[in-house]
Amino acid sequence: VAASSAVDADQLLEAAQGGDRAAVARLLTMVERGGDAAAAVDRVAFGQSGRACTVGLTGAPGAGKSTLVSGMIGVARRAGHRVGVLAVDPSSPFTGGAILGDRVRMGDHALDDGVFIRSMATRGHLGGLAVATPQAARVLDAAGCDRVVIETVGVGQVEVEVAGEADITVVVVNPGWGDAVQANKAGLMEIADLFVINKADRTGTAETRADLEQMLALSQGDRPGGGRPAGIVTTIATTGEGVAEAWSAVEAAAEDLRTTGVLDARRRARTEAELHRVLGARLAEQVADLAGGEAFRDALDEVQGRRLAPWDAADRLVRLGRVPGDG
Amino acid sequence: VAASSAVDADQLLEAAQGGDRAAVARLLTMVERGGDAAAAVDRVAFGQSGRACTVGLTGAPGAGKSTLVSGMIGVARRAGHRVGVLAVDPSSPFTGGAILGDRVRMGDHALDDGVFIRSMATRGHLGGLAVATPQAARVLDAAGCDRVVIETVGVGQVEVEVAGEADITVVVVNPGWGDAVQANKAGLMEIADLFVINKADRTGTAETRADLEQMLALSQGDRPGGGRPAGIVTTIATTGEGVAEAWSAVEAAAEDLRTTGVLDARRRARTEAELHRVLGARLAEQVADLAGGEAFRDALDEVQGRRLAPWDAADRLVRLGRVPGDG
Repeated sequence: VAASSAVDADQLLEAAQGGDRAAVARLLTMVERGGDAAAAVDRVAFGQSGRACTVGLTGAPGAGKSTLVSGMIGVARRAGHRVGVLAVDPSSPFTGGAILGDRVRMGDHALDDGVFIRSMATRGHLGGLAVATPQAARVLDAAGCDRVVIETVGVGQVEVEVAGEADITVVVVNPGWGDAVQANKAGLMEIADLFVINKADRTGTAETRADLEQMLALSQGDRPGGGRPAGIVTTIATTGEGVAEAWSAVEAAAEDLRTTGVLDARRRARTEAELHRVLGARLAEQVADLAGGEAFRDALDEVQGRRLAPWDAADRLVRLGRVPGDG
Repeated sequence: VAASSAVDADQLLEAAQGGDRAAVARLLTMVERGGDAAAAVDRVAFGQSGRACTVGLTGAPGAGKSTLVSGMIGVARRAGHRVGVLAVDPSSPFTGGAILGDRVRMGDHALDDGVFIRSMATRGHLGGLAVATPQAARVLDAAGCDRVVIETVGVGQVEVEVAGEADITVVVVNPGWGDAVQANKAGLMEIADLFVINKADRTGTAETRADLEQMLALSQGDRPGGGRPAGIVTTIATTGEGVAEAWSAVEAAAEDLRTTGVLDARRRARTEAELHRVLGARLAEQVADLAGGEAFRDALDEVQGRRLAPWDAADRLVRLGRVPGDG
């Protein structure tokens, strides 16, 4: 299975690089599934990725992220970029929440071959979205997207983690008391490179900006790998107002991180964190393999009968467990 | 190290069973540390445990849990039980929050050899409190406590998980709008065998009872292993009012679960879940071992240089990884 996955992945990536959208979709599905298929895809995509700038975009549900991303895609396309979008919804294993956003955006970009939009689901991937998302971004990168937007649907722990896996992190808030405070509570002050106050035609925009500035001043120096303080821009995504400026701010922040060496430091730190996570995911797959087997049932019977302690049972199973890649 | 831990654990448990409180404390410290020492303790404690009734007690900070538990200890002691208490605070690795509660209770039971109270900390245990707490409860059980109360400081995910690891789960709420709703949101309706409305001299007690009854009616049938609907009692822990009745309700619920076979079914399910968790913890220890080693640094260098994909690096490390218990 592993060998045929590898051949598949190789051929699929070649097809994807030639513009075959179905091949991109199949590669992403393999990544979502995890296990040997995901490893096979990453084996071929990893070496051919690293060119794209990845942009994480997060914010509370209803902040207008989908409309903003749709507008940003348009701006990036006019600048000649090929754009991949991963819409990540940790709360929905079947992408229910994300699909709605897709439809909004697909309406604008459905006929554009330079745009690839995908809702990410875990489909039982034991490493979860935190493991699958960077791999999926690499597939889009290797397939020729030089800008990859990773959009998450909320501001929970997983969303913040996923959004922080990008080169640049954009946090979308709305005017009004409390939104900035929520962003602070969720740990977004530490990871944001840019705040977009969307729906800036509403009252409270100036106050929200002031709140953000104050909290940014307090959290300075906390950001991983350093980098300049987060910028703040205002948009009205529904009319397009400020969207080009917001995208320019993203590009400028990326350029700044690149020239100061911060981007490289961040990528190194991310790679190390990813290796830890992938290692954990591989071992978790071992647990799942072991737990599904006869040896696990036998050990469990002995534990239930109090003849074997759980730790001894675990050690026996680990000794029996096959190592991925050996078979 | 593993062999000497085993000898230590054996001798310590014998001393603990003879009434040596310092031996109990040392065994619990070994459990908290995880790794081979914890395995050695569990190896000896597991076979000699299973007699105690374990009572998980959870509720929002400030609900009066410590005072209630102190009162319950007194009632249980008068009925001839030996009582162990584990105060679990997942938010504080150094038990800062739990210690305050200890002092309250220690004042009442400091001179009683039939009571053992301990704040649980993780101290780097990779399986976390969810793995360490059931083992610590077994130590108290094997040491002769026939009632073990596992008190958690809040109603977060970990607290609910830890409280649910007991034979009987008690949820402490206070009168007032919202507390019952919070309990429902936190998933407590599904795990509670008994609700205690503490501070019942405050207004809103009847309304809170009505709220709980309504939510219990809606969540019936969700409880793991079945069992009768959760009871509701009222207490004023500071004056002792209702505390004896609350403890009687705990004992009655335990007896009911025992005679209907639900307790046995729950324990079997818990044992299976625990074996999964311990297996995961053992493999996590492997990750930590691997990540600290030279092979990890070498693999990381190759990944940073894009010469090796993270999944291939992980698989190579897993193949190199020593299996716990082999050395």
